Amino acid sequence: MQRVRSLKTGWQLLKTSCEGAAKLVVTSPSTSRNYSHLPPQGSGSFGLLFDIDGVLVRGRTPIPGAKQVFRNLVDSNGKYKVPVVFVTNAGNCMRQTKAEHLSEMLDVEVSPDQVMLSHSPLRMFTQFHKMRVLVSGQGPVEEVAHNLGFQDVITIDMLREAYPLLDVVDHDRRPKGSIPPTKGLRPIDAVILFGEPIRWETNLQLIVDVLLTNGNPENTWSSQQYPHIPVLACNMDLLWMAEAKNPRFGHGMFLVCLESLYKKITGNELKYEALIGKPSVVTYNYAELLIRQQAETLGWNTPVKRLYAIGDNPMADIYGANLYNRYLQASRRTKAQMQATSGGGGVDPLAETVDAQKMTSSELGGASSVFGAEEDLPEGCSSMLVCTGVYSRDQQELPSDTTHTVTEQQIFHGHRDFRFDPVLLQPSFVVQDVKEAVELVFQQEGWPLE
Amino acid sequence: MQRVRSLKTGWQLLKTSCEGAAKLVVTSPSTSRNYSHLPPQGSGSFGLLFDIDGVLVRGRTPIPGAKQVFRNLVDSNGKYKVPVVFVTNAGNCMRQTKAEHLSEMLDVEVSPDQVMLSHSPLRMFTQFHKMRVLVSGQGPVEEVAHNLGFQDVITIDMLREAYPLLDVVDHDRRPKGSIPPTKGLRPIDAVILFGEPIRWETNLQLIVDVLLTNGNPENTWSSQQYPHIPVLACNMDLLWMAEAKNPRFGHGMFLVCLESLYKKITGNELKYEALIGKPSVVTYNYAELLIRQQAETLGWNTPVKRLYAIGDNPMADIYGANLYNRYLQASRRTKAQMQATSGGGGVDPLAETVDAQKMTSSELGGASSVFGAEEDLPEGCSSMLVCTGVYSRDQQELPSDTTHTVTEQQIFHGHRDFRFDPVLLQPSFVVQDVKEAVELVFQQEGWPLE
Repeated sequence: MQRVRSLKTGWQLLKTSCEGAAKLVVTSPSTSRNYSHLPPQGSGSFGLLFDIDGVLVRGRTPIPGAKQVFRNLVDSNGKYKVPVVFVTNAGNCMRQTKAEHLSEMLDVEVSPDQVMLSHSPLRMFTQFHKMRVLVSGQGPVEEVAHNLGFQDVITIDMLREAYPLLDVVDHDRRPKGSIPPTKGLRPIDAVILFGEPIRWETNLQLIVDVLLTNGNPENTWSSQQYPHIPVLACNMDLLWMAEAKNPRFGHGMFLVCLESLYKKITGNELKYEALIGKPSVVTYNYAELLIRQQAETLGWNTPVKRLYAIGDNPMADIYGANLYNRYLQASRRTKAQMQATSGGGGVDPLAETVDAQKMTSSELGGASSVFGAEEDLPEGCSSMLVCTGVYSRDQQELPSDTTHTVTEQQIFHGHRDFRFDPVLLQPSFVVQDVKEAVELVFQQEGWPLE
Repeated sequence: MQRVRSLKTGWQLLKTSCEGAAKLVVTSPSTSRNYSHLPPQGSGSFGLLFDIDGVLVRGRTPIPGAKQVFRNLVDSNGKYKVPVVFVTNAGNCMRQTKAEHLSEMLDVEVSPDQVMLSHSPLRMFTQFHKMRVLVSGQGPVEEVAHNLGFQDVITIDMLREAYPLLDVVDHDRRPKGSIPPTKGLRPIDAVILFGEPIRWETNLQLIVDVLLTNGNPENTWSSQQYPHIPVLACNMDLLWMAEAKNPRFGHGMFLVCLESLYKKITGNELKYEALIGKPSVVTYNYAELLIRQQAETLGWNTPVKRLYAIGDNPMADIYGANLYNRYLQASRRTKAQMQATSGGGGVDPLAETVDAQKMTSSELGGASSVFGAEEDLPEGCSSMLVCTGVYSRDQQELPSDTTHTVTEQQIFHGHRDFRFDPVLLQPSFVVQDVKEAVELVFQQEGWPLE
């Protein structure tokens, strides 16, 4: 609950009290293709969420047209015309670094406040901030953790050094000479998986050791330690597109390994306290918070009504945007019902929303992390699938007709804890690339893009 | 079939034509505890199979008593009194190296011919020897492969260098500067997994790339490539005991990762052409071949009738020895039936044996790798579990009473392709350590151990 409260506090700070009269653009997957042009809206009622890998770059190579898109999105002073947030599942870096990289590549200024990494919502998980957390990932994980608010951080390398007999898959890492002493660290309270680490064998072994010993790897493994200490994972992406012809392994693959090994040893399922990053709702909720901040800075006098999420990964970007859209619709319905019955006698509207849509706590990004329903949430979120990344039209994995599409046979590349809901994999729009996506948005919104 | 033939040829070379009159010591799990002293047998009717990790050493630390055991097993000239083979699932090294290490540690001379690593039976898989094989493991994998007879060997590192865009989990391994060219290797025909590699992420990614592209990672991933090119895996051990208090990850854990990732991506099960090392039958078959060689060198004039396999890992050592014992019993029955019906009209006795016992091809170590049934096989193989390694009496994972022991709830630490047969997990004998094990054997055999 502490988390919810702090999220709500953050929300309050940004609350815009005035309500606009903008009309709802229906963006649910089943109807969006029937979209017909609406008259131009009052300025300031939409925002853009850009995925990065497969949409703007592949590896270090920019996708053609991406630069031009961003030239058109800023005015002659380099100021953005509409709120823009970069929502990536990358997590093994800092927002500042990512923003600098984007600025350089796109030739427009990108502020860290426009960048959302998979772990960014952890800033709101304040109940874990004072705990002793073990972090896994690569790059500046310790610094990332501190920046997010974690005060007592142990890295996998620190654990290895404290307990030098644990990491012995690599023969060269086995202790030479006399057995080195252990340091005896204080127990670990929670595990945070930021992104794909290096040397999976080391990370898998040490994380399993921690989970089977209640956070103290000096103790004996015990199957009694179940449920284990909390595990929070960022970025579930199974695959992503770099320069190689075929998809590359993402953090989701590491999670599959960890889940499989834990189950093989203990017979129990690994449990996640929270799964953060696309496609979880908490991620879009947080992105929308950033969009709202920018709208305010732009001086827009109405809340943002429509979000457009552009991505290449059906399971992350499309599933996520559609899931968030479903969440928005449910929140609106609940709110309307609440208003109609003037109160509802103490029933938690969020609980009802969640129940109505049967979203799992994983899909929401953690059992108690939903927030913001009493606020002026956007009315819809459209999902736009580009063909420059994980998905390509050649694959024909996503038939254009939703009626006879996904069969039981189709392979589910989503996370274990997310349901295989074929409807959520259907994008509102399929476009060739990011340029076509943005042109379509501006056309829909009746805005000029020059 | 080629394999079977070559195995049989090897066998023929070692065939001992004389049959002794030694009485069968019944060593099946259910009756062995009722063993009563038999009168001393004629010299030369038993052999010893020693596991190494958890029986003779933990990490680099010798287990107390191990040295004394071996002092007693050799005469004043350092010559072994009985055939001794070291059967380890370790595979990331050469027999020569392992023999030197054992000689030093046990203070007796150990010849490479006494050492059996998990990959040793691959020497018999001649049908793969001319193929282009990708090998995974650590240490001198290329040299190991060549020594086993493989003539066209590609390592994971060679594959990485040829296709520099494939291995990008580690940010520091991603290509810097301009995109490097690929070398375009000839396609890979089969994959051989020797043992747990270093950087599992690299090995998992490249092996999956090879399996999804029919051996040519320059091609596009295709689910049409199923069944994939042959995969041969050595050493299924999930866990093993080093110096740490808790078990450490073995190659079996890497296999669980590979199986899980392959299934997650393709929806199909990874298939093994062969699973080699304990507990597969082919391993014990090969070990028995080495025992037979030694018996001949010792000048024993009767075939070895009884094998005693001493190990610490219920799933590898006990399951394996019992499975082999079951195989021996079935072979004997088949042979007896064949003799009774004088021929059997062209029915393959091995096929019948396999069918009668319902052993999977994985349990046999490969679809067509069973061999030797027409030879003078031993009459039984006893399994002896020590408490100095993976298994300890405290765990009480193996209750002493077989009647109400293993429930559906028990966690199966064996390989996916081996059946969970609780009877096979029951050792013939549970002893404290290797010293007690060998004393018991000599007592059973009525031999002095001085």
